[in-house]
Amino acid sequence: MYDISMTIAKDMLVYKGKDEIRPRLEVYRDFKTGDAHETKLEMNVHTGTHIDAPLHMLEDGQTGNLFFDEKPFYKAKLLDLTDVKKSISASDLQKFKINKNDFIILKTINSKPGFLEETPAEFIYLDQSGAEYLIEQQIKGVGIDTNGIERNQSEHPTHKNLLKNKIIILEGLRLNQVPADSYFLLLSLLKIANSDGLPARAYLFAAGEIESILAQL
Amino acid sequence: MYDISMTIAKDMLVYKGKDEIRPRLEVYRDFKTGDAHETKLEMNVHTGTHIDAPLHMLEDGQTGNLFFDEKPFYKAKLLDLTDVKKSISASDLQKFKINKNDFIILKTINSKPGFLEETPAEFIYLDQSGAEYLIEQQIKGVGIDTNGIERNQSEHPTHKNLLKNKIIILEGLRLNQVPADSYFLLLSLLKIANSDGLPARAYLFAAGEIESILAQL
Ligand SMILES: [Zn+2]
Ligand SMILES: [Zn+2]
Repeated sequence: MYDISMTIAKDMLVYKGKDEIRPRLEVYRDFKTGDAHETKLEMNVHTGTHIDAPLHMLEDGQTGNLFFDEKPFYKAKLLDLTDVKKSISASDLQKFKINKNDFIILKTINSKPGFLEETPAEFIYLDQSGAEYLIEQQIKGVGIDTNGIERNQSEHPTHKNLLKNKIIILEGLRLNQVPADSYFLLLSLLKIANSDGLPARAYLFAAGEIESILAQL
Repeated sequence: MYDISMTIAKDMLVYKGKDEIRPRLEVYRDFKTGDAHETKLEMNVHTGTHIDAPLHMLEDGQTGNLFFDEKPFYKAKLLDLTDVKKSISASDLQKFKINKNDFIILKTINSKPGFLEETPAEFIYLDQSGAEYLIEQQIKGVGIDTNGIERNQSEHPTHKNLLKNKIIILEGLRLNQVPADSYFLLLSLLKIANSDGLPARAYLFAAGEIESILAQL
């Protein structure tokens, strides 16, 4: 089992390293002033591991409510794209076997410890041709190992085309420990009403692993 | 599959109906002012479906980091306690077969539509004797269908005894649709560092149901 979720904390990696979007955790009750310890979380819903709802980039797009009834399990494939330099294009993806309804997880050099910390604004992204190729393959979703799936493309064609085609965009994955392989993705979304993004917890399991965990309970 | 999670929204049910702890969802970027729609969530981590970390009620208690490496699956039993009037005591629980490591889900009249909306401060809770009984049975966790597992007991013995015994307290479940039975609980926690509580998404599955979902992917 690989937990591929980011930990939410003040010093976590945020989009392009922008300080103004760091989450805040405010302790507003503790044992000095009361008999319980309570924390308030203040966070952009696009922080850490999360999905984008169509509304995030499409004016008439649906909110995250769209995903409320999804079963939280997906067939996933982690692709090793750690040799890609700037962006993932169709030509980088054509060498892999991708099936209809796969949840494609893109592992890039973003996952290399230190890479994003040093150059947070220069993350590897999925470019327009890469997104179009994945749409043609009729995938179920696509995940990437940084806070954004796209940068520096005017009009955000990667986001917009994926979202128009109801493909789930999963951002902020931690993949450093995970080898390329087929997995089952457990993707569990915080159930926030009418939101443009939903914070998530995500795990990858090997074939048979969930069944074996259940059998041992 | 039963999704037993609450939806996070301004008008949701909050602890004792207190307005000051309602979550806030602030849209701070939209298509009038920019090219994306982004929302900020401001929320007490004990809102909606969530677990309590030991730190919530114990001065030297551990944070939610304690649970980061848990596998998200549990053997669960939903107990029908809808006839209980004020609080669930040991005597109410003794009639059920409870095994070591069970995750016990308490379904009470809290789940009846309108009950909590009308009298949010008079929810059915697990009293000290009930908590002590569950601790003796060495359960793994206990869930309840309201925002608190306890009220009106001085010194919070239910919370403290459960947390001292590393029993997971899961609050804010929606159980109205769910009959008493054995289930597998999928409990997925938002991975917030050093927190006294962790928002969650929770599902109940019948025996064999997860295996059959995976086989059909
Ligand atoms: Zn996003
Ligand atoms: Zn709580």
